[in-house]
Amino acid sequence: MPKLNETHDASLTSWVDSANEPGADFPVQNLPFGVYTDPQTGKGKVGIAIGDMILDVTAARAKGVIGGVADDAAGACAGDTLNGLMAMGGRHWSVLRAAASKALRYDTEEGEAAEALAGEILVAQADVTMRLPAQIGDYTDFYASIFHATNVGMMLRPDNPLMPNYKHIPIAYHGRASSIVVSGESCKRPVGQTKAPDADVPSFGPSMAFDYETEIAFYVGPGNPLGQPVSIDEAEDHIFGLSILNDWSARDIQAWEYQPLGPFLAKSFASHVSPWVVTMEALAPFRSGAYQRPDGDPTPLPYLSSDANEAEGGFDVQIEVSIASEKMRDEGAAPEVLAVTNMQNLYWTIFQMLTHHTSNGCNLRPGDMMGTGTISGQTDDALGSILEITKRGTNPITLPTGEERKFLGDGDELIMRAWCERDGARGIGFGECRAVIEGA
Amino acid sequence: MPKLNETHDASLTSWVDSANEPGADFPVQNLPFGVYTDPQTGKGKVGIAIGDMILDVTAARAKGVIGGVADDAAGACAGDTLNGLMAMGGRHWSVLRAAASKALRYDTEEGEAAEALAGEILVAQADVTMRLPAQIGDYTDFYASIFHATNVGMMLRPDNPLMPNYKHIPIAYHGRASSIVVSGESCKRPVGQTKAPDADVPSFGPSMAFDYETEIAFYVGPGNPLGQPVSIDEAEDHIFGLSILNDWSARDIQAWEYQPLGPFLAKSFASHVSPWVVTMEALAPFRSGAYQRPDGDPTPLPYLSSDANEAEGGFDVQIEVSIASEKMRDEGAAPEVLAVTNMQNLYWTIFQMLTHHTSNGCNLRPGDMMGTGTISGQTDDALGSILEITKRGTNPITLPTGEERKFLGDGDELIMRAWCERDGARGIGFGECRAVIEGA
Repeated sequence: MPKLNETHDASLTSWVDSANEPGADFPVQNLPFGVYTDPQTGKGKVGIAIGDMILDVTAARAKGVIGGVADDAAGACAGDTLNGLMAMGGRHWSVLRAAASKALRYDTEEGEAAEALAGEILVAQADVTMRLPAQIGDYTDFYASIFHATNVGMMLRPDNPLMPNYKHIPIAYHGRASSIVVSGESCKRPVGQTKAPDADVPSFGPSMAFDYETEIAFYVGPGNPLGQPVSIDEAEDHIFGLSILNDWSARDIQAWEYQPLGPFLAKSFASHVSPWVVTMEALAPFRSGAYQRPDGDPTPLPYLSSDANEAEGGFDVQIEVSIASEKMRDEGAAPEVLAVTNMQNLYWTIFQMLTHHTSNGCNLRPGDMMGTGTISGQTDDALGSILEITKRGTNPITLPTGEERKFLGDGDELIMRAWCERDGARGIGFGECRAVIEGA
Repeated sequence: MPKLNETHDASLTSWVDSANEPGADFPVQNLPFGVYTDPQTGKGKVGIAIGDMILDVTAARAKGVIGGVADDAAGACAGDTLNGLMAMGGRHWSVLRAAASKALRYDTEEGEAAEALAGEILVAQADVTMRLPAQIGDYTDFYASIFHATNVGMMLRPDNPLMPNYKHIPIAYHGRASSIVVSGESCKRPVGQTKAPDADVPSFGPSMAFDYETEIAFYVGPGNPLGQPVSIDEAEDHIFGLSILNDWSARDIQAWEYQPLGPFLAKSFASHVSPWVVTMEALAPFRSGAYQRPDGDPTPLPYLSSDANEAEGGFDVQIEVSIASEKMRDEGAAPEVLAVTNMQNLYWTIFQMLTHHTSNGCNLRPGDMMGTGTISGQTDDALGSILEITKRGTNPITLPTGEERKFLGDGDELIMRAWCERDGARGIGFGECRAVIEGA
């Protein structure tokens, strides 16, 4: 298993009180990285979330709150993205995390010194706007939940829902990097070509089958040169951390355009990510074995197999999806939970995905993003898209206001949250990924 | 038709003698932009090709050879990519072109002054290495040659080779930006999963069906904000210029991986581009009508239709593909021409491609690249891939050395050249896109 150290100790508390509240997403055991807009300068700054506050890494370094062996890593946070830090690799990430932990703890000398400087090194999350955490060079979306692939396949090919390649290859396609935006920005309903099954010709207009996709994103740390694949045993060293990803999909646009080269405009209008990147080290206590393949499923080819992948390739990350229509929000109704799913439903681990991606020699760059694909579980309350929940619109859902939804409506707000739970270690959270749908 | 001006005058000559040689790719009527590595500093510099030389734009500006109304545009060339210039838009591109034309002409005061400074503002192409011309944020590959789509479809679905969507939608997929490299770099044969039709399980190894794809790339100039499509009449203003693109493909990897989400590792190991970007203004004399759709073909939907697109959406650009095996090169044999094709074989214009791309609200950024897809003509001597030439390896070709090729071999060098010919206007060239295949 990945190494645990004193930063994971579940008994640690912070001098930032909000970090100690039960169920807080950002206790001192988490320390995720993100980028916010400095209200004074309008420029991006790298921060670490702690409770409902943000540690300004550059200010903390300037004040001597973070330094020593962590100085290089803190210095790499001077720009307006995490790319510099991501490129440095695990040793640097770890020393910076250790320094931030010491500085934010209640019981350390460093913490006492930091608390005295709180006004100069902390900003309230409520006072700032978050940005994309990285300049994302390329975005790749996988299709790694076998339950999702089966559910979707069932609608198209009831007798043979899974493609023959599915259990051999982590299926993926290249996505659009330019339209990745951060939680809180709205999502405009796309327009495009669609063709009803009974129509002679396609028409052009707003998508009438607008969907979300519940995913986890992971960011590349150090890259690899073109022509030099990353082995399955090295894959973990190339991943900086995880976020929540809502990879919106226009199912009607997709159905008409996707043959023979895959989804294009059905996806490229927007993808939303949560702003905080939960590091691999923070996730160390929440690792699990890889997905247990049923007897008879093929063993992955050697380039995708390793004992470590089997033993600790999985992540016990819960993901909850809720919806709040405009009417629900007007009436003050709580968001309605659509599903709770878990990363353990992935047939392929993120390490297998990354290794497969580079197996042909493709180069990855720091800050590149990959998505797991829609994560659906085996049960009806764990489906990662409304396509699956309403069975392509044939079983509409009813919201608390009495409104019906076959697919998403204008004004609907989608909220995804993710977190880890485990005995002995205090849970950590990912925060949220939310967006309101604007009419076309 | 796009406006012609004095820079297009076929009678112009340059004081750089090599620019005046018959058939030169880079006469003074062309003036394509590129980025080369400064041998002194090792940094990228923006240049304009003239004959077998390069005008160093920054040095020319510093020496007062380029200035006045072109000073802003020349200043945008101070970095190591063309992105800054691309973002500025057509008015700036045009004044910079006019200034470069004046400075490089034989018969102007500016030319006389520039010639006196030749040693300080020119470098020989032979003395420098070219780089990628832009930081490419996203790369999208279309599938816009109906002859190619039909040829490939025929191998898979002889009775119904073209998908029903083909004549309604410019089909495309997202490509990989990180692995785009410049002419002259080698191309390593990819390894990957393949499954022979008669095999029970896939295996992992070097691709045995390695192919090139003959394409034209175009670079985005000014981008568009997320959610704001570019209309067909505005599309031209968003294109900076064109290059040659070889979008290598591993057909065996593709066949096994591409269902249901399209090509991924079959493409992402490398794409080669020619280093010089021929501007839209340089191409103005070589525009033609859009592809003449046969009677009975559907009219494009209104968002893809405009009189201007029909009248001048096409480009009369010839593209020649040659091969030289290692043995051929050792024996001093000339490269063997595999095909000569033309951009007029595209069913969709690059303006329709760009407009379609943004129709769902997808944002483009300066420097983004799009490929046309493999350009095949109707005849056997105009096929844009070896897949089509050898009919998937069933009709191998024989090289002058007696070597046989079903697909590409290790050590083979692929050379693509492109140029424009027209009565009255001197031809301009794209230069070349070449790469030698390295064994896996």
